[in-house]
Amino acid sequence: MPQQHRARVTREAIVLAAAREFARLGFGATSLNIILERSRVTKGAFYFHFPSKEALAQHLIDHSRRGWMEIERHRLRAASDPLRTVVLMVDDYARLLTEDELAWAGIRLLGEDGGPGELFGAWYVSWEGLLRRLLTDAGRRGLLRPGVDPGDVAGVIAAGVVGARAVSHGTAGSGDLADRVSRLWRVVLPGVATAGWWSEFQGSDPALVGA
Amino acid sequence: MPQQHRARVTREAIVLAAAREFARLGFGATSLNIILERSRVTKGAFYFHFPSKEALAQHLIDHSRRGWMEIERHRLRAASDPLRTVVLMVDDYARLLTEDELAWAGIRLLGEDGGPGELFGAWYVSWEGLLRRLLTDAGRRGLLRPGVDPGDVAGVIAAGVVGARAVSHGTAGSGDLADRVSRLWRVVLPGVATAGWWSEFQGSDPALVGA
Repeated sequence: MPQQHRARVTREAIVLAAAREFARLGFGATSLNIILERSRVTKGAFYFHFPSKEALAQHLIDHSRRGWMEIERHRLRAASDPLRTVVLMVDDYARLLTEDELAWAGIRLLGEDGGPGELFGAWYVSWEGLLRRLLTDAGRRGLLRPGVDPGDVAGVIAAGVVGARAVSHGTAGSGDLADRVSRLWRVVLPGVATAGWWSEFQGSDPALVGA
Repeated sequence: MPQQHRARVTREAIVLAAAREFARLGFGATSLNIILERSRVTKGAFYFHFPSKEALAQHLIDHSRRGWMEIERHRLRAASDPLRTVVLMVDDYARLLTEDELAWAGIRLLGEDGGPGELFGAWYVSWEGLLRRLLTDAGRRGLLRPGVDPGDVAGVIAAGVVGARAVSHGTAGSGDLADRVSRLWRVVLPGVATAGWWSEFQGSDPALVGA
């Protein structure tokens, strides 16, 4: 039906324009007017789709969270060892943020104070917790070097990814996030994983490790 | 002179109240009115000291930058090896941000899009560059393990500190920043520095390394 089609096209235009502006300027500094201008949509058409700028931002945050949870579910179900699960999960996450402008905007909104996100703290704590459980399991299975504290590693990886995203955002855009995450693996894993795990891992995915 | 004294007290009250609100909500979401309310200062008195909210934010950013440059100058002048210089510099920086509310607010403002800072990208590039030069020098002096790329390590430490700050900001406040930085050293340095450097370093500063 052409009318339904037109409505969907309008909605997608609003969401994409908003994602780009939110990603660039954040929630607070992005006006509804600029979103209307960029999406070439009238105020009336906008309100047909979204009750407010907040609702639109929340839509992007939810989109980003769904993508992340899908990755989590997928990677936790796959038959990888727990250390490999951590690495592949974070790589998938970097890929999602790089390839999906809506997810990139959503994650930026999640961390914005005064915005509708303000859930960054809760999200972060649960994410670092997931990494800690996986890394503790990796330690129990003898995949970590003696003396390595799984909680320390979880904190460094979790905060390292947050930092990599922030730095990509502030410098090159999302384009170099995957590269920054690869650097994190090259620097952290050789000192943390057993030599056997690391050489097997490098053999299984040279692209990921190649400088 | 009592009048000069009163003016100084007023100015300090404005700056401290602004630092707390900016740190909490960011530049965009902090109104001039809330700063006046928190500092118990009239609008007239405010404008005697600062022409605008932007000028006040810039004052905090400048304060933070001065603190950082002072640390840099001090640590580059000290007779440490370059790897130790990196570690002590970052530790000093974490201490500054933890102990000085004005610097904590300034660094948060520096990274805020749409705020007066918007210099995060330039600051970050120059900072990662400084770490890269020091770590390249450390490599030349044989302080890094064979095969370790100094540029990778610089990127991971620089983005790791950015992430640690963001995570502290979003969870515990500035209180756990130094602890997050210590974790970064415990996880990264043993795999990056030679065993000799690392054991000597641990011996010289057990407090920094103790879990």
